[in-house]
Amino acid sequence: MNDRVILAHGGGGELTKRLIAEHIMPRLGNEVLNPLTDGALLDAPTNRLCFTTDAYVVQPLEFPGGNIGHLAVAGTVNDLAVMGATPKWLSLALVLEEGLEFAVLDRILDAIAATARDAGVVIATGDTKVIEARGPAGMTLTTAGVGVLRPGTNLDACRIKPGDFIIVNGAIAEHGLAVMSAREGLAFQTQLQSDVAPLNGLIAAMLDTGADIKFFRDATRGGLAGLVADLAEETGLTVELRENDIPLTPAARHIAELLGLDPLTVANEGKCVAVVAARDAEKILAACRNHPLGRAAAVIGQITPGRPLAELITRAGGRRIIQRPYGEELPRIC
Amino acid sequence: MNDRVILAHGGGGELTKRLIAEHIMPRLGNEVLNPLTDGALLDAPTNRLCFTTDAYVVQPLEFPGGNIGHLAVAGTVNDLAVMGATPKWLSLALVLEEGLEFAVLDRILDAIAATARDAGVVIATGDTKVIEARGPAGMTLTTAGVGVLRPGTNLDACRIKPGDFIIVNGAIAEHGLAVMSAREGLAFQTQLQSDVAPLNGLIAAMLDTGADIKFFRDATRGGLAGLVADLAEETGLTVELRENDIPLTPAARHIAELLGLDPLTVANEGKCVAVVAARDAEKILAACRNHPLGRAAAVIGQITPGRPLAELITRAGGRRIIQRPYGEELPRIC
Repeated sequence: MNDRVILAHGGGGELTKRLIAEHIMPRLGNEVLNPLTDGALLDAPTNRLCFTTDAYVVQPLEFPGGNIGHLAVAGTVNDLAVMGATPKWLSLALVLEEGLEFAVLDRILDAIAATARDAGVVIATGDTKVIEARGPAGMTLTTAGVGVLRPGTNLDACRIKPGDFIIVNGAIAEHGLAVMSAREGLAFQTQLQSDVAPLNGLIAAMLDTGADIKFFRDATRGGLAGLVADLAEETGLTVELRENDIPLTPAARHIAELLGLDPLTVANEGKCVAVVAARDAEKILAACRNHPLGRAAAVIGQITPGRPLAELITRAGGRRIIQRPYGEELPRIC
Repeated sequence: MNDRVILAHGGGGELTKRLIAEHIMPRLGNEVLNPLTDGALLDAPTNRLCFTTDAYVVQPLEFPGGNIGHLAVAGTVNDLAVMGATPKWLSLALVLEEGLEFAVLDRILDAIAATARDAGVVIATGDTKVIEARGPAGMTLTTAGVGVLRPGTNLDACRIKPGDFIIVNGAIAEHGLAVMSAREGLAFQTQLQSDVAPLNGLIAAMLDTGADIKFFRDATRGGLAGLVADLAEETGLTVELRENDIPLTPAARHIAELLGLDPLTVANEGKCVAVVAARDAEKILAACRNHPLGRAAAVIGQITPGRPLAELITRAGGRRIIQRPYGEELPRIC
C-alpha cells in the first residue's frame, strides 16, 4: 500500500514531511514557497490588493478536459481577474482522503503547477491534511488568491446603464456538461471537454484596449442564468439575452438535452461576461478574438430600461424570464 | 428538515443566497465582506505582506473549550503572528456536509465572528460548498490569512546560537487532549479544555519589549516535539529541553497517561515557542506574564552546541532524544 495516502501522512510528523518533500515540493516549489515557513512573505508592488478564496469539491476528480487541480488554480485566478486585479499569489490547502493513490495526487499537483505557470501566479503557501476515506478516495482543495489591482480600472456595476452590451468570450456550459458526462458514463459518446482555463490573460487584453468596461464576472456555479439574474438585481435594470447569439456547440446542446439540463444554468470554468459601453463593443470583440480563449466571443444581449429582471429572447422569438437556479441540478460540479 | 443543510444549499442558486444571507452575513458581515464580490479589496498600509493558509478537519466539530470555528481563525492568525506579521484579513471557505444542523453551523459561525473580533481581523472573502454526508454530518473549514509585516522585526532562525533560551507561553498538550477526551467519551472525567486562542496580542506584546527575539512558532500538529525537532534541523544545533520546566497541568498529565500519549507530541492551539537571547529572557517572561495568555510562561530549555538534535533532560535527570512523531497518534485533531 505504498502507493496510497494513509492517515499518518496528515499527522504533521515524519510522514507528512515526506509527502511534502517527495510529492508536493518537486512540483510546486518556488522561491516564495520553498522556505516552508508558517506564512509566505509577499512583496506587493502596491498596497491596493484583491483577496479571494474558493473550495473545490468536484467529483470525479478527473474529467474530460481537466482535473480538480486545473480548477483550483483557474477558478481563483479568474475571481481575481474579474475584479480587475492581476493575480499574483495563491495559497493551496489540500484535504486528502486516506487511500488516495499517489499517482492521482501527482497528476493533480502537476495540473496545479502547469496552470499556475500558465496564469503567471506563484503558489506561495499551503497546508496538507488527511482524513478517513468515506467513499471513493477523493480530495478537496481550497485556494485563496491575492492579486494587485490594476491602476485605472473602473469596474463598478453602478456604472451600467441601458444600451450597454453584454459580451461572453465563447461557448457556454462545457465544464458542467463534461463533468456530468463523466459522472453518468456518457463521456465516450462525446468530444465535450471542460472549458477550465485561467482567464487573466484574456481579461488583461480586454482591459488593455482602454475600452469602457463596466463589469466582469465568470459564469461558474449557477451558469449564465445565475450571473444575469444577479446582474439584474445589482443594477436594477433589465438584462436581455438573445438565445440565437449565445455560443453553444452542437455537442453541448446534445448532451444538455440528453441530461435534461438548461445550458444557461450549467457551470462554466473558462467563461466570463463583460458589460461594456455599446460604442466599445467591436473593440472588445476584436481583442477577444485575437486571444486563444476568446475566438468565439460574441455580443449576446444588452441592458435595457425596465424592471430588474433577466429575459431571454428565444430562438422562436418569444420571451421568457431567466431565473436563478433554485438549488442545483449538479452537485459537486466545481 | 428545514433545520439542516441540504445539497441544494451549495448549488450557487437561490438556496445558496439564503444560506449566505440568513446564516453567514448576520454573523460575519463587515465593510470588506459585505459587497460579496468575487474578491475583496484590501487597502494594506504597506506592501510587505505575509500570506498563510490552513485547512481544519477536526472531529468532533465541538470539543471542550472550543469548536472548529475558533480553531480556523486562531490557527491562521497564529501562523501570521509567529512570522512577525500583524494579522489583518482572513478568507473563509466552508465545505459543509449535507445534513449538518443549522444550529451547529450557527454556533461555529458565531465562534468565527467572536474569535475574529478578539484577534482584530476581518473576514474579507469566502466561499461555501455542500457535499454529500458520509458519516456524522460534519464540515471542513479552510482559512487563508493576510498580515502586514511589523517593521523592524528580525525573526530568522539563522540568528539562533548556543546559549539562547527557549520560552513557551503556558501549559502544553491541552488542545489535543481535550479533543481526544471528547472523542473517547472521557470529557466528563476531566476539566481539561482546549487552549485554542489567537496569540497575536501576546506575540505583539513580546515584540513590543524590543527584546532580541530570533524565532517564534506555534506548537500545533506534532506538538512541542515536532517543533523542537524542526528547530534542531533548521539551526544545526542541539535543542535541549528540561522536562521539569515544561508547564503541564496535573489534569493533562493524567489524561495523557490514560490515553497512552506523550504530552510533548500532542497538538496545542494556543501555545507558541520563542527563542530569545539569554539576556532578554526575563524581559520576555515579564511581558508574557502580564498578558492573559502568558501567565504560565516559562523558560523550558536552551540552545547548546552539538549535533542537530532535540534532547530532553528528564525529571529523573536522564537524557533522551526527542523525535518528531512519525505519523500521528491523533488524526483530525485540528
